[in-house]
Amino acid sequence: MQLFYNSDINEATQQLTFSKEESRHIVRVLRKKERDILHITNGKGFLFSAEISIASDKKCIATIVNTETKSKPWNYYLHIAIAPTKNNDRLEWFLEKATEIGIDEITPIICQNSERRVVKLERLEKIVQSAMKQSLKFTLPKLNEPIKFNDFINQNSDETMCIAHCEEGEKKLLKDTVKPSEKTIILIGPEGDFSSEEIKRSLEKKLQPISLGESRLRTETAGLVAVQTISLINQ
Amino acid sequence: MQLFYNSDINEATQQLTFSKEESRHIVRVLRKKERDILHITNGKGFLFSAEISIASDKKCIATIVNTETKSKPWNYYLHIAIAPTKNNDRLEWFLEKATEIGIDEITPIICQNSERRVVKLERLEKIVQSAMKQSLKFTLPKLNEPIKFNDFINQNSDETMCIAHCEEGEKKLLKDTVKPSEKTIILIGPEGDFSSEEIKRSLEKKLQPISLGESRLRTETAGLVAVQTISLINQ
Repeated sequence: MQLFYNSDINEATQQLTFSKEESRHIVRVLRKKERDILHITNGKGFLFSAEISIASDKKCIATIVNTETKSKPWNYYLHIAIAPTKNNDRLEWFLEKATEIGIDEITPIICQNSERRVVKLERLEKIVQSAMKQSLKFTLPKLNEPIKFNDFINQNSDETMCIAHCEEGEKKLLKDTVKPSEKTIILIGPEGDFSSEEIKRSLEKKLQPISLGESRLRTETAGLVAVQTISLINQ
Repeated sequence: MQLFYNSDINEATQQLTFSKEESRHIVRVLRKKERDILHITNGKGFLFSAEISIASDKKCIATIVNTETKSKPWNYYLHIAIAPTKNNDRLEWFLEKATEIGIDEITPIICQNSERRVVKLERLEKIVQSAMKQSLKFTLPKLNEPIKFNDFINQNSDETMCIAHCEEGEKKLLKDTVKPSEKTIILIGPEGDFSSEEIKRSLEKKLQPISLGESRLRTETAGLVAVQTISLINQ
């Protein structure tokens, strides 16, 4: 199944007009004709089937003929706050893989040791969207604006918050820290790790220091290992 | 710590001559001088400390002053047989991440639905080596020559062999199939999945069909999810 994404449609939508770019793709590349059925999600747990009424490569129009609700295939709520990697590809890679496995919310956090402090959300949005479509999911992970480390730990406090830092000290394994179906936030630091000051603050804020295991992992690998650990705990 | 890799040195080695390329890197880029100490692994569980005796950017020579054995940080033996991805980056990405997390052996398997049937092992070797160095490991995963699916399942039979195919049918979750510290081989198929014929053969050969969970995963993501699942089972 080829899945399209359109955030604007909802249960009340009857007709759908595709953008020029999408119309071209549908008619020219996919060679869809009138009466063909397209599958579209709004990323909010809905799958819409729409019949093409006008197969124009500039302005393709389709009429919604069926609406299904689709619950997400993962049974947990996971929010990863991750420092953008120096090399942007690595963050993008993390977003793609995390979306495939199952994640609800991602926040880029700017830390003292962050070498990259600017993030192009628009590009990241596109990566998350295509990963959702490619893995046939109907719930789009929420991608938040970048935020400074301190602001982030100050404003999130109700969920279980874990910090995966590399400094010495008492740490439990992530898999022994989080309970199934527990709403969880996990902080992943930049290449140079969280600063001692940030780690100190996180402890004052009662974040749980966790370990992802014996191996030394890159930022984006640590992020993915965290996602897969939560996924397994809930399997 | 900056780690170098040289497969030729062993406990008997006393002096070490770096290649022109490495010598240049050591002397020009890292600005190492005589009497500086370099750290080298042979990828066989050894860490050698060597003192630079001649800091020439064409032919750097170092004398081994200390030898340590380093056991691998993972306590399992995992062999992943994975179909090369159509886009080579994705296989390379899998190799890098699997090496970071912990893997012992990787075999590219050529399947009926494989779109890519040629693999450049030399390039893959370099990726595994740099991931080992970057994650400060001292055991280099074994990268085998590509082999046809049928030949592979015929020649490996003593270990627990699992196949992660996407066809309907009775499958246990990988995490419920493998026991801790059990020597395991896991087969990961190409973009088009294993063929029905291959799946049938694997069952005749008593391979265990396994599921990696509810999500639809790309080949390289499935491979990494398998590695991380085994890693967690053994944590």
